[in-house]
Amino acid sequence: MERGRIAIIGAGNVATHLARALDRKARVVQVCSRNIEHAARLASALRDCKPTDDASTLDADCDYYIISVCDDAIEPVSMTLPDTDGIVVHTSGSTPIDKLARHQRRGVLYPLQTFSAAAELDIQRVPFFIEGSDDGTRRKIKELAQTLSPSVYEADSEQRAALHIAAVFACNFTNHLLEIAVGILHDNGYPLTVLQPLLEVTLHKAMLIGPHGAQTGPAVRRDMGVINRHLSALASRQAEIYRLLTQSIMERHK
Amino acid sequence: MERGRIAIIGAGNVATHLARALDRKARVVQVCSRNIEHAARLASALRDCKPTDDASTLDADCDYYIISVCDDAIEPVSMTLPDTDGIVVHTSGSTPIDKLARHQRRGVLYPLQTFSAAAELDIQRVPFFIEGSDDGTRRKIKELAQTLSPSVYEADSEQRAALHIAAVFACNFTNHLLEIAVGILHDNGYPLTVLQPLLEVTLHKAMLIGPHGAQTGPAVRRDMGVINRHLSALASRQAEIYRLLTQSIMERHK
Repeated sequence: MERGRIAIIGAGNVATHLARALDRKARVVQVCSRNIEHAARLASALRDCKPTDDASTLDADCDYYIISVCDDAIEPVSMTLPDTDGIVVHTSGSTPIDKLARHQRRGVLYPLQTFSAAAELDIQRVPFFIEGSDDGTRRKIKELAQTLSPSVYEADSEQRAALHIAAVFACNFTNHLLEIAVGILHDNGYPLTVLQPLLEVTLHKAMLIGPHGAQTGPAVRRDMGVINRHLSALASRQAEIYRLLTQSIMERHK
Repeated sequence: MERGRIAIIGAGNVATHLARALDRKARVVQVCSRNIEHAARLASALRDCKPTDDASTLDADCDYYIISVCDDAIEPVSMTLPDTDGIVVHTSGSTPIDKLARHQRRGVLYPLQTFSAAAELDIQRVPFFIEGSDDGTRRKIKELAQTLSPSVYEADSEQRAALHIAAVFACNFTNHLLEIAVGILHDNGYPLTVLQPLLEVTLHKAMLIGPHGAQTGPAVRRDMGVINRHLSALASRQAEIYRLLTQSIMERHK
């Protein structure tokens, strides 16, 4: 991947993290965003990169076009790119490769991570899941991914959709359970920080021995006394969540 | 808390971690377990400690009696202890202090952590929540807790029950969501480890800016296209969990 020329379409969180990381390894020559100020801001943080708000004016001779925009915009944006021999990829978990069908060499570069503007991120620890329209294209996308991280896996569109669902459970939904837990703590005058050691150990144990073996608590013990006391103390939506997850734990641990 | 004499009733995970940590700061003189082999094994790991399987034979002049047995056994076990001027505490989140009513000086020493036999634990990072039957007793329990950890909070029985519920959400239920996520990964041929960077960042962000601000994903974006695709790909129990948590996220993020 020596001196590959890259155009990035999008200037959101994923686009920004990828652009910065790629800028150290390759040449991000153009950034495109509907919002020219966003494009200009990101371009100015890169070594030698020009901003635009019109994808049709991008150089046709880039090696890679990385479309990192919201899911619904991927297909329409891909239609506005110039005709190119370069490889066009998107970065979405839940969008099939077919949405890029206008381009002969197409693929996916999906990072299994949650990105935010504020937080710095070690991109080398992010696992990337790649797909390519043919062997040669897949190989080139793999090279690109490997400049970012040593953790590169192949995933077809169906596997990638499953990975995204797994990420929703592991990240979005666990975060929501933390929000509920923190709400209960606040109602009782305790700060968020009292949970941190518990959370760290929970995560550590799940990774060490797997979450099945690491399961503890009243549900897996079938401690109906505690479960019923907890249910009667909770507001209705939270009781509903408590009841359903307790039931699901009992089903998995017979 | 110079040279306090401590008896520990129980030889499970919590009892074992507490006994080992206290043995460095005080004198754990006796360990009692229904199973004499468990008591003997734990006692032999301590400096100068005798095992027994009969709580009624414990020295009556200990400073502290720490009952760390399953919730249902706390009250019956407390009835078998000798009459004592020492302080009798239990370590349970969901058991009221009243269950120790036979003893004049009674209280609670509740560690907000998940304990397991295998995993080493830095007890100094565990937050302890204490309660005492009177000011003097509470002060003495606080001293004991502070020999273990700098994070010591007061909590009455109602607050402690709430803390336990928060811990169930934050630890037991998040672990179950990880089990679901890992199951989906395995079905698609990927190892547990691909989730680790995502989980670490999720936890880090939730602690840094609070879980409300850290919420991401299709539910908070109200991305019904992705949500419906995910729901139709999931088995029924998992779809039910996905639907309920998505609904709950939407309610909290209007």
